[in-house]
Amino acid sequence: MPRYRLLIEYDGTPFVGWQRQANGVSVQGVIEQAILALSGEEITLKGAGRTDTGVHALGQVAHVDLVKTVPARAMRDALNHFMEPHPVSILAADVVGEEFDARFSALRRHYLYRIADRRPPLALDRLRAWHVKKGLDIDAMADAATVLVGHHDFTTFRSTRCQSRSPEKTLDGLDIRRVGEEIHVEVHARSFLHNQVRSLVGSLRQVGAGGWTKADLAAALAARDRAACGPVAPPHGLYLTKIEY
Amino acid sequence: MPRYRLLIEYDGTPFVGWQRQANGVSVQGVIEQAILALSGEEITLKGAGRTDTGVHALGQVAHVDLVKTVPARAMRDALNHFMEPHPVSILAADVVGEEFDARFSALRRHYLYRIADRRPPLALDRLRAWHVKKGLDIDAMADAATVLVGHHDFTTFRSTRCQSRSPEKTLDGLDIRRVGEEIHVEVHARSFLHNQVRSLVGSLRQVGAGGWTKADLAAALAARDRAACGPVAPPHGLYLTKIEY
Repeated sequence: MPRYRLLIEYDGTPFVGWQRQANGVSVQGVIEQAILALSGEEITLKGAGRTDTGVHALGQVAHVDLVKTVPARAMRDALNHFMEPHPVSILAADVVGEEFDARFSALRRHYLYRIADRRPPLALDRLRAWHVKKGLDIDAMADAATVLVGHHDFTTFRSTRCQSRSPEKTLDGLDIRRVGEEIHVEVHARSFLHNQVRSLVGSLRQVGAGGWTKADLAAALAARDRAACGPVAPPHGLYLTKIEY
Repeated sequence: MPRYRLLIEYDGTPFVGWQRQANGVSVQGVIEQAILALSGEEITLKGAGRTDTGVHALGQVAHVDLVKTVPARAMRDALNHFMEPHPVSILAADVVGEEFDARFSALRRHYLYRIADRRPPLALDRLRAWHVKKGLDIDAMADAATVLVGHHDFTTFRSTRCQSRSPEKTLDGLDIRRVGEEIHVEVHARSFLHNQVRSLVGSLRQVGAGGWTKADLAAALAARDRAACGPVAPPHGLYLTKIEY
């Protein structure tokens, strides 16, 4: 009973999120339906990380055990065929050992958050980046961000719906740079709390807009209080870019 | 009666193209309606270049004469307000002299064509780049492209619906480079024939896929026969990026 690892790209816009739900179309559900069409097996796909509605992925990873043996490349192409016209693409399929678990074997998760700080609306990237109408001070953001890196209690930057047992996480890296007309915030950690990246980016935007100082950001983190978080950044600027094993 | 120059970005997907038509929503029509809402004036907007349905713009230029005097920044913001939720954005509005004509004053037009040559489908860039399933030989494409640069009779690479008096044009530059997973073809010239860029890119793709040699491309150009053109590239990979005056 071979185990397959899937590398997955998707546009989060039309989905209720990664996770299968009763009230709409999910990325997980679309892939599971394609596997059913391919192999006749009704399975549960195990993803490395859940993404909310509107959040995109360039490198989500999932695994599945199938009775049927399918060559990896053929599996990739067949799943892509059966998923049309949903904006989900299997970039690679590989046979892996039973010890591989998409979620629990993950050593490091990478996210990108795209902010477009310009006055005119975004015609082409409307659902691909967060439109912030005023120019942001990227140096102030990068300087303030240093207080977030490391091991902290991230209660301030955690959704009240977060199911993690502990609010403590280690944020291994947070880089901010200007890319053309955009600001790219890249973060990586072994794991994240629910809404953590969007909460961090929302608060960093307060700093970039001049409403918060670095000390305000540090105080928000130290407060360990969800109410101290800045307005959470919208989902459509967020990309799950890579998972390291 | 001030003349305004508009710098315009749009997602070509939902439009019948730049030009106002009876059978659907056009970019020109959407902007004209916003001008009507702003100033009460029923005008005809003059664009620098027509784009077909599905073709995008990062830097289209147009001009319009208005009786009403509106500060340029206020004009930009008001037009953007009235155009919501259409994916059209006025990046800048400026008052210019009467001698400025968006179409006839243009010295150089720049286009970008994006090709994604990979096997899996495009989840995020489905309507932003041409998906070509087999990897293309970019060096062969770049070498062959040299035969296209310069002054030529481009009848082969011209839509049969092209209304230009002459099929002769001077292609000033054609650059091909790999950008991440994509191939970007950038061209510039004083002006282009209808479907010229998509026709050139479609034929260059034949070279990149190994079906055509550089000599085949030269022969197609020399044939001055529309039937000698390779399959025309689809509109959604094409971007009008910049107009120089």
